[in-house]
Amino acid sequence: LNQRAVEEARERQARMTKPAGSLGVLEDVSVQLAGLAGECPAPLPEPAAVAVFAADHGVHAQGVTAWPQEVTTQMVHNFLAGGAVVNAFAAQVGAEVTVVDVGVVDDLPAVPGLLPRKIARGTADMTRGPAMTRLQAEYAIEAGIEVARDLVAAGNRCLLTGDMGIANTTASAALVSAFTGRDAAEVTGRGTGVDDAVYEHKVAVVRAALEANRIDVSDPVGVLAAVGGLEHAALAGFILGAAFLRVPVVLDGVIAGAAALAAVALAPDARLACVAGHRSSEPGHSVALEHLGLRPLVDLDLRLGEGSGALLALPLVQSAARALRDVATFEAAGVTQSD
Amino acid sequence: LNQRAVEEARERQARMTKPAGSLGVLEDVSVQLAGLAGECPAPLPEPAAVAVFAADHGVHAQGVTAWPQEVTTQMVHNFLAGGAVVNAFAAQVGAEVTVVDVGVVDDLPAVPGLLPRKIARGTADMTRGPAMTRLQAEYAIEAGIEVARDLVAAGNRCLLTGDMGIANTTASAALVSAFTGRDAAEVTGRGTGVDDAVYEHKVAVVRAALEANRIDVSDPVGVLAAVGGLEHAALAGFILGAAFLRVPVVLDGVIAGAAALAAVALAPDARLACVAGHRSSEPGHSVALEHLGLRPLVDLDLRLGEGSGALLALPLVQSAARALRDVATFEAAGVTQSD
Repeated sequence: LNQRAVEEARERQARMTKPAGSLGVLEDVSVQLAGLAGECPAPLPEPAAVAVFAADHGVHAQGVTAWPQEVTTQMVHNFLAGGAVVNAFAAQVGAEVTVVDVGVVDDLPAVPGLLPRKIARGTADMTRGPAMTRLQAEYAIEAGIEVARDLVAAGNRCLLTGDMGIANTTASAALVSAFTGRDAAEVTGRGTGVDDAVYEHKVAVVRAALEANRIDVSDPVGVLAAVGGLEHAALAGFILGAAFLRVPVVLDGVIAGAAALAAVALAPDARLACVAGHRSSEPGHSVALEHLGLRPLVDLDLRLGEGSGALLALPLVQSAARALRDVATFEAAGVTQSD
Repeated sequence: LNQRAVEEARERQARMTKPAGSLGVLEDVSVQLAGLAGECPAPLPEPAAVAVFAADHGVHAQGVTAWPQEVTTQMVHNFLAGGAVVNAFAAQVGAEVTVVDVGVVDDLPAVPGLLPRKIARGTADMTRGPAMTRLQAEYAIEAGIEVARDLVAAGNRCLLTGDMGIANTTASAALVSAFTGRDAAEVTGRGTGVDDAVYEHKVAVVRAALEANRIDVSDPVGVLAAVGGLEHAALAGFILGAAFLRVPVVLDGVIAGAAALAAVALAPDARLACVAGHRSSEPGHSVALEHLGLRPLVDLDLRLGEGSGALLALPLVQSAARALRDVATFEAAGVTQSD
């Protein structure tokens, strides 16, 4: 962060017509945005775009979810038709939706709104070895960086993470365990909602994946390749791309949190571009946020993904920036300060 | 709430293309809005208007705050000039700001955006007897009902509470203590930020006010008159007005919470129109929310007032309603449901 802009923002927050500190966490957000942009006030984080990275997971074969794999493809069609929650929320808060196929098993049509960046037809089953080759993980990271670059080149001043991939909370749990060292049972959740028996099995599958692969956190690309998904690798790249371009990136739930752990392992400063949009009810997400040192803006028991939690946080981020830009100082407004 | 609309909304949430329950608290909000409107899906809660009720407090003479009383007037001018946080947040989320003078000590100009509804030039010092006469409290309640009615007649489909009044967290603490039975020390906070000595004194002032007046919770108007502010009484009316008209009202912080306790004491069903916008860092606010059985949507350590926390919650409320209205069902979208 640019320290001059950070100090200017802190100083301006103290002169704005409001009690010092009374905007709570949003004061910190405004300071972060100023430091990231290198100017105070920072430009408003709008327009905004959510990129929904879609991919399938070989570990689906292990029976970790009640949803059939083809739902990934069906939901991509739903996104493109405007029928999903991500579409409704994006319309409400004024964000653009872009869907990126980085690894869906099925063929997808060439239509507007869908970026074809398929690296592979899903990952391999991570309980039997690496989910991806190293090259596939690198290609996916590169695809994510390029999506960030293209969305910013198109004029966006705020990026939001989205994801779709049946079984991707299983891969997320493995990534969170790998990067934080926490046990599989502490970071595995019920995802879209599985019963006790499937949940126990899911924990065992995460543990099996971590045992079937050599995990070396000093090699984040290797960890992504071993137990990640193609959308996790792409999201890691997307976060890195936003950080390189000094554009804030609002993270969605546990999939984004797992990807952010990889991004920050690759480039620690990437954390400074991240805003935690929300806290999902997946336990691995709280572990990831704690490890990243990020405080979520929305905390309403959501567990949907798609970018829904990031979109809900967008108006909060924008309001934080707008207050820093627009609110009058005591001096300018002729308001007496407290003793 | 209309039970047919409530059931339709619950049933629709189960058929929408998302895992059951995955929108968490926002599913409950969408169901409440449908039940309140008596139709599913409910109309979107927009356009929205925030009414900032401004008034002064006789208890200011007891030295409960570091801010001089004239700041109430100065901030009203700031609101009208568009320079305050409420203006910045309202502009960001697309809400209209109306300022209502129900009891500012100073004369205020006749300008657009300011409704002149002055009941008195501030309240009396509640540590020496009632803050208002019963008639003043009734007039203020009526003024609040009329503001709600006028804003809905102008086309608004969502109302938000706002407030301005130096020393109004002191009156709020007394109201919360009166309506919930909790001790003054549990419900008194530091407001805009007072030091330890002033804080201890503030608790004593709240206790003195409750001792100087006969408190009978079966007479909510009497409680408002005894230890409330003119803006609290007006806000109670505003909440009742919204509920009568079956329009959702998003509550801001501790001042709104204290007013909502009075409104619900007068008409228990008024609670069904209320959405808790946020949880402020004032301890009395959490006590009020708990008593009301409301879960706040935003929880970011804000303690500003003005309507700022309600405005931040508005996009969340609107997104909840829009999802219920716009998201495709599994059947319509051709998406397979889980086993």
